[in-house]
Amino acid sequence: MTKVWTVYLSGEIHSDWRERIAAGVQEAGLPVELVAPITMHEDSDDCGVAVFGPEENKFWHDRKGAQLNAMRTKTLLSGSDLAVIRFGEKYKQWNAAFDAGYAAAMGIPYITLHPAEHDHALKEVDGAANGVAREPEQVVQALAYIIRGDMPK
Amino acid sequence: MTKVWTVYLSGEIHSDWRERIAAGVQEAGLPVELVAPITMHEDSDDCGVAVFGPEENKFWHDRKGAQLNAMRTKTLLSGSDLAVIRFGEKYKQWNAAFDAGYAAAMGIPYITLHPAEHDHALKEVDGAANGVAREPEQVVQALAYIIRGDMPK
Amino acid sequence: MTKVWTVYLSGEIHSDWRERIAAGVQEAGLPVELVAPITMHEDSDDCGVAVFGPEENKFWHDRKGAQLNAMRTKTLLSGSDLAVIRFGEKYKQWNAAFDAGYAAAMGIPYITLHPAEHDHALKEVDGAANGVAREPEQVVQALAYIIRGDMPK
Amino acid sequence: MTKVWTVYLSGEIHSDWRERIAAGVQEAGLPVELVAPITMHEDSDDCGVAVFGPEENKFWHDRKGAQLNAMRTKTLLSGSDLAVIRFGEKYKQWNAAFDAGYAAAMGIPYITLHPAEHDHALKEVDGAANGVAREPEQVVQALAYIIRGDMPK
Amino acid sequence: MTKVWTVYLSGEIHSDWRERIAAGVQEAGLPVELVAPITMHEDSDDCGVAVFGPEENKFWHDRKGAQLNAMRTKTLLSGSDLAVIRFGEKYKQWNAAFDAGYAAAMGIPYITLHPAEHDHALKEVDGAANGVAREPEQVVQALAYIIRGDMPK
Amino acid sequence: MTKVWTVYLSGEIHSDWRERIAAGVQEAGLPVELVAPITMHEDSDDCGVAVFGPEENKFWHDRKGAQLNAMRTKTLLSGSDLAVIRFGEKYKQWNAAFDAGYAAAMGIPYITLHPAEHDHALKEVDGAANGVAREPEQVVQALAYIIRGDMPK
Amino acid sequence: MTKVWTVYLSGEIHSDWRERIAAGVQEAGLPVELVAPITMHEDSDDCGVAVFGPEENKFWHDRKGAQLNAMRTKTLLSGSDLAVIRFGEKYKQWNAAFDAGYAAAMGIPYITLHPAEHDHALKEVDGAANGVAREPEQVVQALAYIIRGDMPK
Amino acid sequence: MTKVWTVYLSGEIHSDWRERIAAGVQEAGLPVELVAPITMHEDSDDCGVAVFGPEENKFWHDRKGAQLNAMRTKTLLSGSDLAVIRFGEKYKQWNAAFDAGYAAAMGIPYITLHPAEHDHALKEVDGAANGVAREPEQVVQALAYIIRGDMPK
Repeated sequence: MTKVWTVYLSGEIHSDWRERIAAGVQEAGLPVELVAPITMHEDSDDCGVAVFGPEENKFWHDRKGAQLNAMRTKTLLSGSDLAVIRFGEKYKQWNAAFDAGYAAAMGIPYITLHPAEHDHALKEVDGAANGVAREPEQVVQALAYIIRGDMPK
Repeated sequence: MTKVWTVYLSGEIHSDWRERIAAGVQEAGLPVELVAPITMHEDSDDCGVAVFGPEENKFWHDRKGAQLNAMRTKTLLSGSDLAVIRFGEKYKQWNAAFDAGYAAAMGIPYITLHPAEHDHALKEVDGAANGVAREPEQVVQALAYIIRGDMPK
Repeated sequence: MTKVWTVYLSGEIHSDWRERIAAGVQEAGLPVELVAPITMHEDSDDCGVAVFGPEENKFWHDRKGAQLNAMRTKTLLSGSDLAVIRFGEKYKQWNAAFDAGYAAAMGIPYITLHPAEHDHALKEVDGAANGVAREPEQVVQALAYIIRGDMPK
Repeated sequence: MTKVWTVYLSGEIHSDWRERIAAGVQEAGLPVELVAPITMHEDSDDCGVAVFGPEENKFWHDRKGAQLNAMRTKTLLSGSDLAVIRFGEKYKQWNAAFDAGYAAAMGIPYITLHPAEHDHALKEVDGAANGVAREPEQVVQALAYIIRGDMPK
Repeated sequence: MTKVWTVYLSGEIHSDWRERIAAGVQEAGLPVELVAPITMHEDSDDCGVAVFGPEENKFWHDRKGAQLNAMRTKTLLSGSDLAVIRFGEKYKQWNAAFDAGYAAAMGIPYITLHPAEHDHALKEVDGAANGVAREPEQVVQALAYIIRGDMPK
Repeated sequence: MTKVWTVYLSGEIHSDWRERIAAGVQEAGLPVELVAPITMHEDSDDCGVAVFGPEENKFWHDRKGAQLNAMRTKTLLSGSDLAVIRFGEKYKQWNAAFDAGYAAAMGIPYITLHPAEHDHALKEVDGAANGVAREPEQVVQALAYIIRGDMPK
Repeated sequence: MTKVWTVYLSGEIHSDWRERIAAGVQEAGLPVELVAPITMHEDSDDCGVAVFGPEENKFWHDRKGAQLNAMRTKTLLSGSDLAVIRFGEKYKQWNAAFDAGYAAAMGIPYITLHPAEHDHALKEVDGAANGVAREPEQVVQALAYIIRGDMPK
Repeated sequence: MTKVWTVYLSGEIHSDWRERIAAGVQEAGLPVELVAPITMHEDSDDCGVAVFGPEENKFWHDRKGAQLNAMRTKTLLSGSDLAVIRFGEKYKQWNAAFDAGYAAAMGIPYITLHPAEHDHALKEVDGAANGVAREPEQVVQALAYIIRGDMPK
């Protein structure tokens, strides 16, 4: 199979989970292209006003940034084969849940990645998922199986 | 116009915001049918095992419930003209954000309803919304305008 | 809520499961319209040649019938809010699994209804379902919860 | 025509039908990429728990595996030009019929491949197919005609 | 079942086939609403210029009429459950074949209705149909079976 | 035919064209439901801030109003059978052209209504239309023909 | 622009119109990939039975061929940017009109190519087209303009 | 990320805004393919009659051109990741607003580019946009951020 699988990595931007998935994918030599939102926190907050001009009101400052970021995220998510939706231990990460709902409606299968303590609060998001992982390495294992049928060692 | 507008009320189940919208809609005599998830908290948690049989593992207990609830929510949300996505002051309410993403992907316009303290965390969800309200009465005013062109008094 | 829910009952035609669901729905006074394929076995086999003319070859005899039946099943399934996919103890019932795949692709949630002995063989069909029931009465309970939030007594 | 045709091979995993199609495609030099589910039976049963963690209950053991496999099958089937749906002489193969229904709903044409003894039981699945083959070599001939207009020798 | 089935009758406007179907539907008491293009030949030719103003060039005279008629046919066909595509003994009736292709692409099942002499020329149109009838009464029988399971007497 | 046709009237809000169409439809007794944006100019400008709170910046004042109005227009236009897109002699009316593009992409046929002086500038919008009218009475004639086959007298 | 345009050439198989378009495209150096049904008449009639086995009844002989050909035509047409629909002077060519309807419903723009004598009979098919050509060279000119903005010399 | 982003540049053809975006994209080394309508004004007016034959009536002269141009614009816009909708200081540019509506309905995010004087008249078109730019260089900055996360210097 010559297919390169595009996998969208949505959610938490404060830990190294994307790097761990990237490292695992590379080590395993999987034909995967990882895509993601811009993960530089300050830039993703301020990009809108930096590009389209300043706003006095923080609400519209945020709006401009959110809509600029959405041009990236919507396009990349819509074009992905699979998605990973990550919820970290802190922060609300409502945008991750938004992406999960968006993916579900578009028929894009996703894996959630979160600690067990969020299980109850995330039961609807997990209920529409095709897998629930605790560690990024499990996502790599899932990709290795999905793409090549490799079982975890 | 003879149309009855179906409006899905997603999110927080701990305050009386749905009742306030319902009262306002009734008082204004708006041709609106309000639909919503099951808002009885314990039942929405336990419905799955009550119907399909018990589970020892809480994770699957929750899964059964989430997927049973999803048959209601997915069907009602998909068939709605508009949605209201409510985030209260407490709780994660990831399912509300999930519904917002689902609605966005299906082209169903929605209004978010939340206190200003969540503005920054909800900027992506607000960014895809057609309106951001603070109080349920504003949702009623929005519906009155959308449907009949009534301006707030 | 004034909505009448349309529920498609797919699969086995040799036991009284549809009647049991119908009786339960009626007893509970649920706003449900049950739809189904033609369940008179001989007629569903012979309808094609009876309407469009005889065939010497059994293969085309069956084809004419299958395609005539498909005009009913495709239209009713596509227009349903929910589906129930029933696998009995005997027979292959590949058409039930076909309907499940069709429903899944169209985003119509479904409940499977089958004895536990089929669990392993049906794991993919169950995996895309929103519930797995053993008895028709559980389907009625699920509908009562989905539509009115009624918990089983 | 520079197009490479992607063909999904769904169903039975106990005989060498996929290998025979692959050999035929290669021998004929057809621009075809064959894709398929993971066909290692034990792995496809156990992959879910191997990746996402063990389950005591066999039902959920199967569920985890089915949903992990579904990320592969759904993505590959949805991205295919054509599908072949194979029913062998043994086993229920409900997942093959599920795939047929899924393909039909998505407008992906498919060929069924099964012995004549299943003709009556498969009449609905055949009725939505664009061809019914008995031997894998006929599938190769069909592909050669579809892609290059080659008639069987 | 309370459903009223909408059936689009496309094609030939020179014989009484629509009236025969209407009479049969009425006699059988079927819950069917028959819809059709405007069948008054001269009016369907001249409506465009009559409404939107005259054209010297017959080509644009026809264009205006065709596009005005298309507002009726496209809307009614798109909203139908089933279609009947009629080819008479004379005339090209390319618009009937156009409607068949349109219905096929939209997933609306259809029955063709034509004499056997056209079988070879219509093989592609018949190949995408769910039934091929010779007489309008067979269409009525098909509807009676599809809707109520009635077998022809 | 029992169908009531829903017709969206988009565009210019400064002349009485909607009233003339409404009068014509009523006089002819056509089964038509006319829907439209809110046509009270000041209200459509100010509704957003009236409902969701004031803005110092006129740009966001307008944004709030535009997005509130869009909940009406998008829902009504998407649910219409046909649309009329009106361009008056003054004003840019870019929202009318926006609605035309939206309708075209959704497969909703539309008639444009404008004076001949705009023909060249509107050639792309007219090119995707199913009719070009000069006077509201022609729209009524078109509807009478589309729905009942009535020719203009 | 690096895009290669895929253009489906549907219809008449008895004259050299496809060759003339191919020659013109090559001469102009246009980045166009032409695709088409199998145009070897006997093979397109007999392919079905040659691959899937003989039929005594000519009707089913034709059916098998039509459905095998449809796997090619449906896939190629659905994946095309544009289509050309050709009607020659003889034959019914209902399949060409079927393809036009299919393209229209899928939003694929097409050019018709036919002599003026068919103008009236093809007015509906032309009415949904984006251009009406008389000679294959006009199709090449249209492609040169569409892709590179070249005006005819 | 290996993705090349396709960006459609719609609207005004009288200033050098497309060239400025192209220069900026090239200077920044962005993986962007810019696509656009034919911007040679006279040719875009006359292409239809040049290819398909002359028309006496200017209205149909324009129609032929508009529909030929639409084969380019519809195909390119539909296949784009993002769009830029430009309104200059003069001209009505209804086709730009039409493209915006088309993009919105297809879920393609767009940036509008226009002077502040048009803000009020464009509020609906801006309201469905993901960004409002004043200068072409801001569009380049937006693309640099969307694709690579580059902040403006």
